[in-house]
Amino acid sequence: MKAVGFKTSLPISDPNSFIEFETEKPSPVGHELLIKIKAIAVNPVDFKIRQNAAKDTILEQPKIIGWDATGVVKAVGENVTLFKVGDEVYYAGDITKPGCNAEFQVVDERIVGKKPKSLSDQAAAAIPLTALTAWEILFDRIRISAEKDKGKTLLIIGGAGGVGSIAIQLAKKITNLKVIATASRPETIEWCKQMGADVVVNHKNLLEEVRNAGFQFVDFIVDFVDTNSYWDVMAELIKPQGHIASITGSATPVALNKLKTKSASFSWEFMYTRSTFQTEDMIEQHQILNKVADLLDEGILVNTLTQTFQGLSAESLKQAHQQLESGTTIGKLAIKY
Amino acid sequence: MKAVGFKTSLPISDPNSFIEFETEKPSPVGHELLIKIKAIAVNPVDFKIRQNAAKDTILEQPKIIGWDATGVVKAVGENVTLFKVGDEVYYAGDITKPGCNAEFQVVDERIVGKKPKSLSDQAAAAIPLTALTAWEILFDRIRISAEKDKGKTLLIIGGAGGVGSIAIQLAKKITNLKVIATASRPETIEWCKQMGADVVVNHKNLLEEVRNAGFQFVDFIVDFVDTNSYWDVMAELIKPQGHIASITGSATPVALNKLKTKSASFSWEFMYTRSTFQTEDMIEQHQILNKVADLLDEGILVNTLTQTFQGLSAESLKQAHQQLESGTTIGKLAIKY
Repeated sequence: MKAVGFKTSLPISDPNSFIEFETEKPSPVGHELLIKIKAIAVNPVDFKIRQNAAKDTILEQPKIIGWDATGVVKAVGENVTLFKVGDEVYYAGDITKPGCNAEFQVVDERIVGKKPKSLSDQAAAAIPLTALTAWEILFDRIRISAEKDKGKTLLIIGGAGGVGSIAIQLAKKITNLKVIATASRPETIEWCKQMGADVVVNHKNLLEEVRNAGFQFVDFIVDFVDTNSYWDVMAELIKPQGHIASITGSATPVALNKLKTKSASFSWEFMYTRSTFQTEDMIEQHQILNKVADLLDEGILVNTLTQTFQGLSAESLKQAHQQLESGTTIGKLAIKY
Repeated sequence: MKAVGFKTSLPISDPNSFIEFETEKPSPVGHELLIKIKAIAVNPVDFKIRQNAAKDTILEQPKIIGWDATGVVKAVGENVTLFKVGDEVYYAGDITKPGCNAEFQVVDERIVGKKPKSLSDQAAAAIPLTALTAWEILFDRIRISAEKDKGKTLLIIGGAGGVGSIAIQLAKKITNLKVIATASRPETIEWCKQMGADVVVNHKNLLEEVRNAGFQFVDFIVDFVDTNSYWDVMAELIKPQGHIASITGSATPVALNKLKTKSASFSWEFMYTRSTFQTEDMIEQHQILNKVADLLDEGILVNTLTQTFQGLSAESLKQAHQQLESGTTIGKLAIKY
């Protein structure tokens, strides 16, 4: 099968930052599905891995990355019960295994969902990683509840990116929280409002912006930009007994004690935890993806795709990574194979 | 009224570390109860405040500390609805206000409970601060649920202290978790077992001890000893998607990122958050104390008092603080007025 990968970490402008190659088509075993990929999406995790996975070294085999795809089931492992050959599916995948920048991929059925029928292949491919991340951070980490948390406030740092775009929608449509999202350019502010944000504030001078918008404290904060640089302002803005969560990691130690007097909580969300550790509740991701597919098909959630590149090639991946690395992307980028 | 306090932070061995003095009896307003105190308990927070609240300074008025007491309601503020004159009550109180090292105290009714009938004044006084802390950390911060979390594992770092003693009981009796407690001396190990711990491990070499006891990961960890020094081992032992909580504060920044791959959560518990911030759900403490009183009267929980000193005096407070500062106290210390 054809695949695109890299043997060494190079700047995206380098001709060899991605290379095309032929490799063996994988065979599904156990709970695995063999999927023929029809479209993929790119996410910031992709370029972070491209930049770091083969730094100052040359891999023997090119590394295949990419974790967001739509495709058709072509074969199934002996334990598969959730899908059959011919099913159209969408999924993010498992970061410990080869990704979707290839013609075929094997993926555990427990982290795969049925493709939303109403979406194109590329629009569907743009959903899984961000929807799983947003769903898990709101409902599995912070454990926001539609009944108990009615009318509470959620601050989303980074509202216009891929995860932010779907998180705003989930928070408004599933739980009806009051959502304050950050964005700074006219087009990203407009996008956040379109996704459903009640209030959009600038991420510069965030403390003053949120206070000026009439919020002394907020019940929940999710950070999709940078834990370290927003730590102090998050600690200041979080309500006593409130909950902060982030997906970004922290490069340096954190002044955790700033949350103590408020008895506040902090959670990490890492979309790959369930598959990496093969947790007992791994099948939750199958269920989340199916629920999100229904919500998309019912028109309750809207797709977040803003730009599509064409074809499985080194060139299309370079274009997509270059755009994503610019840091100005609104919503999601996909590639139609 | 008679009170005991300090004008400057001194070592407990100093003759003036506590001084007796006369001060005006307070008057209850709003939701306050005026309580004639019959017994109190001492907690580590007491000596920490004595050591730090008037460091290198001399206060004009002596500071009255102490937040754990039993007594009788003698007068009520105009908005009081939960209690009446003559009621026997127990409570921890509000750290922003004068404490219970005095004949009388005013306390907001929403953080006061009915005294457990079956307990002596001193045994009842030993309950509120630790029971509120343990209840809040398990059920409000980690949000452990008797149904959903059946059979899960809880590691309690510091099992034999005041909070540890009641936390072991709550975790066993209310939720039936599998409880692993830390203790290092024969008498503290025995005490933890008496409180209901399933397994007792030494806090030195905690990682090996827990692994050798047959647990690769634990679902929940509560730390009552030192967040900073146990951080790395807690990060190692916590189960993916698990939850760590602590009451101890962290003197230095924390390597929060160690929890990221596991999508783990961390919460602080500070028993004074609700009263300090006058949160909307402040009355929860009234309800928790009433539930705990019932559990004690039904014999489901047992009291944790191990030593009682006599009389409201500088001398009895010095004895109690000295014992607590030794770091070897099992369960709780009280003073009967």
